[in-house]
Amino acid sequence: MLRKMSFAIIGGDLRNIKLADSLFSEGNSVYIYGFKKASFDVNHKETECIQEAVMRSEVVIGPLPCSNDNETINTPFHDGKILINELFKAMSKKQLFIAGHISEKVANLAQVYNVYCIDILEREEMAVLNAIPTAEGAIQIAMEEMPITLHSCNALIMGFGRIGKILAGMLQGIGSQVYVEARKYADLAWIKSYGYKPVYLDDLAGCLPKMDVIFNTIPSIVLNANMLSIIKSDCLIIDLASKPGGVDFAKAGEIGLKTIWALSLPGKVAPVTAARYIHETISNIIDELGV
Amino acid sequence: MLRKMSFAIIGGDLRNIKLADSLFSEGNSVYIYGFKKASFDVNHKETECIQEAVMRSEVVIGPLPCSNDNETINTPFHDGKILINELFKAMSKKQLFIAGHISEKVANLAQVYNVYCIDILEREEMAVLNAIPTAEGAIQIAMEEMPITLHSCNALIMGFGRIGKILAGMLQGIGSQVYVEARKYADLAWIKSYGYKPVYLDDLAGCLPKMDVIFNTIPSIVLNANMLSIIKSDCLIIDLASKPGGVDFAKAGEIGLKTIWALSLPGKVAPVTAARYIHETISNIIDELGV
Amino acid sequence: MLRKMSFAIIGGDLRNIKLADSLFSEGNSVYIYGFKKASFDVNHKETECIQEAVMRSEVVIGPLPCSNDNETINTPFHDGKILINELFKAMSKKQLFIAGHISEKVANLAQVYNVYCIDILEREEMAVLNAIPTAEGAIQIAMEEMPITLHSCNALIMGFGRIGKILAGMLQGIGSQVYVEARKYADLAWIKSYGYKPVYLDDLAGCLPKMDVIFNTIPSIVLNANMLSIIKSDCLIIDLASKPGGVDFAKAGEIGLKTIWALSLPGKVAPVTAARYIHETISNIIDELGV
Amino acid sequence: MLRKMSFAIIGGDLRNIKLADSLFSEGNSVYIYGFKKASFDVNHKETECIQEAVMRSEVVIGPLPCSNDNETINTPFHDGKILINELFKAMSKKQLFIAGHISEKVANLAQVYNVYCIDILEREEMAVLNAIPTAEGAIQIAMEEMPITLHSCNALIMGFGRIGKILAGMLQGIGSQVYVEARKYADLAWIKSYGYKPVYLDDLAGCLPKMDVIFNTIPSIVLNANMLSIIKSDCLIIDLASKPGGVDFAKAGEIGLKTIWALSLPGKVAPVTAARYIHETISNIIDELGV
Repeated sequence: MLRKMSFAIIGGDLRNIKLADSLFSEGNSVYIYGFKKASFDVNHKETECIQEAVMRSEVVIGPLPCSNDNETINTPFHDGKILINELFKAMSKKQLFIAGHISEKVANLAQVYNVYCIDILEREEMAVLNAIPTAEGAIQIAMEEMPITLHSCNALIMGFGRIGKILAGMLQGIGSQVYVEARKYADLAWIKSYGYKPVYLDDLAGCLPKMDVIFNTIPSIVLNANMLSIIKSDCLIIDLASKPGGVDFAKAGEIGLKTIWALSLPGKVAPVTAARYIHETISNIIDELGV
Repeated sequence: MLRKMSFAIIGGDLRNIKLADSLFSEGNSVYIYGFKKASFDVNHKETECIQEAVMRSEVVIGPLPCSNDNETINTPFHDGKILINELFKAMSKKQLFIAGHISEKVANLAQVYNVYCIDILEREEMAVLNAIPTAEGAIQIAMEEMPITLHSCNALIMGFGRIGKILAGMLQGIGSQVYVEARKYADLAWIKSYGYKPVYLDDLAGCLPKMDVIFNTIPSIVLNANMLSIIKSDCLIIDLASKPGGVDFAKAGEIGLKTIWALSLPGKVAPVTAARYIHETISNIIDELGV
Repeated sequence: MLRKMSFAIIGGDLRNIKLADSLFSEGNSVYIYGFKKASFDVNHKETECIQEAVMRSEVVIGPLPCSNDNETINTPFHDGKILINELFKAMSKKQLFIAGHISEKVANLAQVYNVYCIDILEREEMAVLNAIPTAEGAIQIAMEEMPITLHSCNALIMGFGRIGKILAGMLQGIGSQVYVEARKYADLAWIKSYGYKPVYLDDLAGCLPKMDVIFNTIPSIVLNANMLSIIKSDCLIIDLASKPGGVDFAKAGEIGLKTIWALSLPGKVAPVTAARYIHETISNIIDELGV
Repeated sequence: MLRKMSFAIIGGDLRNIKLADSLFSEGNSVYIYGFKKASFDVNHKETECIQEAVMRSEVVIGPLPCSNDNETINTPFHDGKILINELFKAMSKKQLFIAGHISEKVANLAQVYNVYCIDILEREEMAVLNAIPTAEGAIQIAMEEMPITLHSCNALIMGFGRIGKILAGMLQGIGSQVYVEARKYADLAWIKSYGYKPVYLDDLAGCLPKMDVIFNTIPSIVLNANMLSIIKSDCLIIDLASKPGGVDFAKAGEIGLKTIWALSLPGKVAPVTAARYIHETISNIIDELGV
């Protein structure tokens, strides 16, 4: 992204404010709207109305996630509501709308208003980069909750996708004994190549009883009642998978296993880093489009 | 692979003999043919003829690569020739033929003879596992050829596929400053996540002049005359890409750059490990087929 | 430590209770005293009086640190006071007293009562092992306090003793850019050999301005007013050095730098691991003495 | 070393020529003598006689090792002999003589001639830095000699001094299962902290039979007939210890174990890096002396 551009930042959390700072610091013009009630410092003056912010900008950036109800923009720090169609109405064909988790309904609405929109969380590089603060957040939680060190402990990661890969590397770097469960032979080959202990799904039951901490990344109940019943009582289970998660939480609670369902970690544990990754990905999008 | 089975090992190099040892040591029956002139120790007696080996076996294992001429089996240690159609004629419908790099021509021949054949080098896990000895072989060559240590040196890897990933990890583990060139934003995100220095293709020219060693894994001439002209005269270039390779070797020779085109490393630098990986992959194939 | 022995555990914190569990689980007899007000679970029944615990044991284990006032045993969970001379009076010549940070005054008292005592924190292996939970605790604090990831951040460690060495390895394992400041040429050579960026004391001023987090391990004010003045305003400073620490805290507060003086981390962040290391070291002591 | 200085380089191997290049490239004056028969390129013209080289220089640098017979300088590429006393006679009180492994006899001679001499191999930072090419050389040999990859293999390092520490880190970085044998409890604690498998000397016999490669760094016969008898027949033994080494080589040969006694690796496998480390250490010496 070589030339200076103008951006409207509409709603969202601390990440979007940090994104505004970061875009501004590189010489871009930035117009923000939707942060009047923010508890953190906001270095930019809000525009009078959403239309002003949009009108002055080439690119409009919405929140991650874009909306929780498919009708209003997700604006936790705004003193009112911003309707999605109000925003789209204010936009012209030449503008670009970038936000996270744009639902089919919102995408359809965008088409109606002739708004070109891009879901930043669908970008592969964003998903990879987001896995970094997610993995660190998971490690922070484990450190806070466990009375033993991660160093030397037996840590199982279920799933070897983006988060699984990065988390495994960090845990190994701290000194954990890293076990990774996967299904595909090729994944097991990768796991072995990195020096982790591969756990084939069929062997999971043999591995579970000796684990000190389990990180799940698979959005499907693998840790069911049977599996939970063979886990050590002082083992910590951290579920990083989106709904429905990978743990039978009710059963786990019943037998007294400590479980933590940790979602949306990047914005919580490292908002500045998360904002930088959003910035980088927006630059890539703009470069690709040749805007 | 739980039950004991019978295998014919037909031709190939030291890896196939080590594979025979390994299969035998797990209680399987093994019949070999095509190793009379081997310079290494062979612990198994050859069968009288190829038909005997095939007849006594459930699975027939050929060489990697299967054939160099599409007509005869690749048998560097046999005192004659084995025609592929002779082998296929001896096989029944119930048997399985496993070999490496089975060409379209050979595959067609197999169909004519009703032989079910599987190319082991098409298996993703085999390709991943093979990247381990390949990466180690590349490191060995670099250590042998360079008057400086890999520790602290600037090492560039071009391409972030299987070999690139594993080689990058090992070089970092030895203490090199690892640069990785890639094209896709997602790959660059991965490269960054592992702590290597990402080099976008457009920035390659800026990076090349300070490199001490370059490992290419891209089968397309990236290091052309222009690029070669900005590389340090004492930089070593190791090309790991299959034909046509990634280096203009003629030009490199002209300007006095040392280049090594290193192919088929697993069988050369670690035949026993390579055989173990073939064994594992054959077990996976058999498990999947439910033979 | 092959044969089963008997131990009195007198006072201390959760670590001593976990130590009691751990000694007991290996078949030893354990008598505890000084935990009546503990908020955590205690699986062992206290003896009637301190004399009973001592009389029944071959080895008497005190707290870490042994005493805060040189007169009473450090017993945060006891409903009264235990005088050190009361304890020593109850002990015989054949018994061994093990505790942490035994001051000269307490050591003199031990001599008066003919008690053979060993300071476990003077044991080199204990000091090394304790550096593991200390380093992890420091990382946990950094993760909690920083709005960026440790991955990719610039982290400076001042001092390359036990904590510095282990912390550097863990930070590198998570993906930080690790800088280590040291004075001796040999230490700088070690730092380089591990792939960290060596910072010679004279070059500290050049390095400080780009740091995101600084971990000090040197018990002498290196980060004085001058040095603090060139540190980024959002840099976090974690001081792990015992008194007087390495930071001019007053000055840091004045200019708005966030500083955390984190002491005694092992017992706080990983009491179970800390107890295991105490157990291992006690076993080594007993083996060496041939008790 | 800030100001430009003048150096005489007298005898030695490729390292000393690379050192001359390196000193010259930083703007120093360099006079060489003793390389007339060198098979490698020498970019500097020799002086007419040794006296000329010495007279023109502030610092005189000899070979590593300085001498093999205590009478002549070690000059493998000179067309004659250089007597040590001839060199010392030519030197003045104000000059400095730096070389490697200066024997007591040579040191006494220096005193007679009033020559201030420093043994560079006695410098701790030089010893640490030299361990880097030594470890890499050991890995290169292992890769060349073993038919399996270092990745995934069981590698035992005996001794946890400089070479042991750096070699362990590199092997772990390549993916070996690293076992380290040591005697002191503190060393075993360090070994554990780095994630290697600690092997207490008493447990060596239990560990040896499963090793694929053994690197010895202890200059005392630990691998005696008894120990050798329980090692796998295809295990490779690389001895890096100076005389008498750590292996009963005769016995090993008798029972058919492959052993390699690898000494003086830095000059052999990475002369340019070795020269750079000599250069750095000479700079440190000069800085410390405030010459």
